[in-house]
Amino acid sequence: MTIYDTVIIGGGPAGLSAGLYAARAGLQAILLEKSFLGGQAVTTGTIENYPGFPEPITGFEIIGRMEEQVRKHNLPIEIKEVKSLTYQKDTDGYTIHLGDGQILNTGTVIVATGALALNLDVPGEKEFTGRGVSYCATCDGPLFREKEIMVVGGGNSALEEAIFLARFGKKVSIIHRRDALRGDKILQNRVFENPKIQVIWNSVVKEIKGDSVVKEIVLYNRVNQSSSSHKIDGLFIYIGTKPNTAWLNSLITLDSKGFIIADEKLQTNLPGLFAAGDCRQKELRQIVTAAGDGAIAGMMAYHYLQQ
Amino acid sequence: MTIYDTVIIGGGPAGLSAGLYAARAGLQAILLEKSFLGGQAVTTGTIENYPGFPEPITGFEIIGRMEEQVRKHNLPIEIKEVKSLTYQKDTDGYTIHLGDGQILNTGTVIVATGALALNLDVPGEKEFTGRGVSYCATCDGPLFREKEIMVVGGGNSALEEAIFLARFGKKVSIIHRRDALRGDKILQNRVFENPKIQVIWNSVVKEIKGDSVVKEIVLYNRVNQSSSSHKIDGLFIYIGTKPNTAWLNSLITLDSKGFIIADEKLQTNLPGLFAAGDCRQKELRQIVTAAGDGAIAGMMAYHYLQQ
Repeated sequence: MTIYDTVIIGGGPAGLSAGLYAARAGLQAILLEKSFLGGQAVTTGTIENYPGFPEPITGFEIIGRMEEQVRKHNLPIEIKEVKSLTYQKDTDGYTIHLGDGQILNTGTVIVATGALALNLDVPGEKEFTGRGVSYCATCDGPLFREKEIMVVGGGNSALEEAIFLARFGKKVSIIHRRDALRGDKILQNRVFENPKIQVIWNSVVKEIKGDSVVKEIVLYNRVNQSSSSHKIDGLFIYIGTKPNTAWLNSLITLDSKGFIIADEKLQTNLPGLFAAGDCRQKELRQIVTAAGDGAIAGMMAYHYLQQ
Repeated sequence: MTIYDTVIIGGGPAGLSAGLYAARAGLQAILLEKSFLGGQAVTTGTIENYPGFPEPITGFEIIGRMEEQVRKHNLPIEIKEVKSLTYQKDTDGYTIHLGDGQILNTGTVIVATGALALNLDVPGEKEFTGRGVSYCATCDGPLFREKEIMVVGGGNSALEEAIFLARFGKKVSIIHRRDALRGDKILQNRVFENPKIQVIWNSVVKEIKGDSVVKEIVLYNRVNQSSSSHKIDGLFIYIGTKPNTAWLNSLITLDSKGFIIADEKLQTNLPGLFAAGDCRQKELRQIVTAAGDGAIAGMMAYHYLQQ
């Protein structure tokens, strides 16, 4: 049975970058991905803010390039689900049980399982994702200069992103299901004081319509029990982000939202277990910050094994 | 006089990425660079470990692409030296005096002035940099599989990198000017126990020779006062790294080596003054970690100005 130096769990930008650095450091490494490479990066539209790509590029293309790069360094990539991860205190290593019954032993683990933006789950949402529907204002906000924008949600993220989007859009409407926002008072004040932002209360999205791009949205008012149709160009959905960390079964310390807590070496509270990318508690979740995390985690795994 | 939202000082990967994110966030931003864009990235040879570029690419090319990208977002870039940076407590802003006498006022500053690997300053060093002479084992180590490698230095970095390079090279010789290493005892032990590593004591590099690539090195033994010639393929120089932070004149907190201390938001001890890339105290200095830093600093400057 192979005993790995490091097992990387997750094949988005963080996992692929960790794999690149681990393989180049000469570690016996493997990358496990449960469904498809790329994570959230491949479900977004075009990417304009990964440094080094002046022309807009699809997430699919960037991930394809990252995959080609790690394959050149002979990193094995397997599409397999991790069933459980356990720490072996006696050997100071980890045991990983896979969905197909296989068992891997490894000295270190890099968890790069990402996060998932919660969906509205309404007609048109999937179809128009990347074509007017977005889950990332930082990424896509500048595409909507002087346009009609709507933001769904009422928490801190929704309010912050609405304020950000108001720098670009002609008007920003916040669609909120209740009659009061959940976000911090200071953010609420900034929203109410911003002449470009309005709040549409007690409403939920019923349907998203368009042709090649989003054109119209149908809202349902839960108090009046009436529907209304609105012309829009962009819809930003901020109803929550869920890190893919439930499978860890409280093995390591998470914050109240389920994000992994790691230090600047990306070391979690268990020795040799590192976290990289969107699944960890961090300031900014972007492809380039995930790739930076991956590089650090790959090298820190190497240094950990040296000791 | 323009009052900027943010002034980015330094035009390497960290500064360019900060500029990209700041410009996309709609900030009134400017990037100042004192000599040429790219920093250390353009003085290295080919780059294999910036995620997204499966084919080896020159630093010059990557930087050119990053520059094109920020120019598309209309970030002004000026080749001007910063003479001084001062914090105005009353306005909570910063004043920057440039070498040409111009004065800029700004709400935030992103310092991305990088670091410099110290040179040996011997014949052949400049000529063969990127062609056998390297200052980054993480970047170039894998190019020297089964090759003859020498490392110059005796501190922690030199020892760590020699151990790393021993994974690839046929033999690694550490050239040290004294009769005892400076690095930590634990690293010294690992060096002495590694069958692939030898130390050449009391010696300095006199000359580096080759044709299109490095072939030979001339060493001078300071005790015997004799010269000797050795066939080599790669020379890694680790005699120290100097962050470009002396110009800050103790405005912000630095560590004992002069690197800027910043938190996970890349905020220094002065409000609105952020540090990104190689100039700050951090775990791993690579193009991708610098670019990740830049993205965070750009967005944190935006969030800071919102408050």
